[in-house]
Amino acid sequence: MNESIEKDARHAARMQRKKTVIDEKIAAAQIERGVLVVNTGNGKGKSSAAFGVVARALGHGMKVGVVQFVKGRSDTGEEAFFRRQPGVVWHVMGEGFTWDTQDRARDVATAEAAWEQARALLRDPAISLVVLDELNIALKYRYLDVERVVADLVARPAAQHVVVTGRAAPPELIAVADTVTEMGPVKHAFSAGVKAMPGIEF
Amino acid sequence: MNESIEKDARHAARMQRKKTVIDEKIAAAQIERGVLVVNTGNGKGKSSAAFGVVARALGHGMKVGVVQFVKGRSDTGEEAFFRRQPGVVWHVMGEGFTWDTQDRARDVATAEAAWEQARALLRDPAISLVVLDELNIALKYRYLDVERVVADLVARPAAQHVVVTGRAAPPELIAVADTVTEMGPVKHAFSAGVKAMPGIEF
Repeated sequence: MNESIEKDARHAARMQRKKTVIDEKIAAAQIERGVLVVNTGNGKGKSSAAFGVVARALGHGMKVGVVQFVKGRSDTGEEAFFRRQPGVVWHVMGEGFTWDTQDRARDVATAEAAWEQARALLRDPAISLVVLDELNIALKYRYLDVERVVADLVARPAAQHVVVTGRAAPPELIAVADTVTEMGPVKHAFSAGVKAMPGIEF
Repeated sequence: MNESIEKDARHAARMQRKKTVIDEKIAAAQIERGVLVVNTGNGKGKSSAAFGVVARALGHGMKVGVVQFVKGRSDTGEEAFFRRQPGVVWHVMGEGFTWDTQDRARDVATAEAAWEQARALLRDPAISLVVLDELNIALKYRYLDVERVVADLVARPAAQHVVVTGRAAPPELIAVADTVTEMGPVKHAFSAGVKAMPGIEF
């Protein structure tokens, strides 16, 4: 019994110290502005984290624009779900994975058209959140010029948030981002022979 | 001009090889069943990726249950948004971050009550996706017994998907998971003095 009381007291003291550190950090972070988030890495969760942020923003009554630079399939749950939500603009610009089209000139033209849609959102202060899904893939294959993309991102309205997803985010993008997460695969169901499941993978 | 044609031909050949490898992998993955996904690590995106999967599942007409084990704040966009969606059961069981309560006995009782809600979802085959948000925190502080949690997860309906989030996922959970992502922080706006922004952080 005494042991349990001591354990609880140690827990309370440790948590008090933790709270002090966290409260100080929160007090120090007072800048309010739009942030640029980049979700990269080879693990699962890059696009789904962006779509979770879409839900979050809609919950705060914000308007959201999404551009998907690579259309992997046409039956995704996220597209079906968010297209029917008020306050969402959803563009799917890709024509398939780049290894499906096997046509560089067509992929470049598609990426350029997608970037034009993105730029329109990035110039509209009424849009609080812009998601540029799989933009990193278009940058990795140099379908788009990274300097131009970065310039348009930096020139967006000051309060606008942007989330960029895709493997292999280029260093030029990471340099101007506020929050960057590397989603690393520890294990994946696919490697164990499990098919891409609706509601989880798409 | 010839250089450009050669570049396009090399691109097409590389993409053809890539497509062959990917098609073989897709053909090899034919098992269809519920998967257990764990989002862990110190970076941003663990909970938002889970909420993105909720949107995905709802887009496929599935029913979803969410239990939040740690209630950091009461004004989250995700809760406001998903509570108004048909097909979603949403429980917020935590009473604050564990460093806010500083009361181990109360945290244990809260975690136990949350686990009872989770178990009810994990026994209901009508629920296609169960999100256990910040469960890893309850396991890290040993508010819940990991063996019992793993046993309940393993005993769930065969087609049911589960997403568990939170830093420091225990090895016992990783062992039974199908897909595990380590979300690693490359950089974070908070460290640069930016406040937690609505629509992005909550």
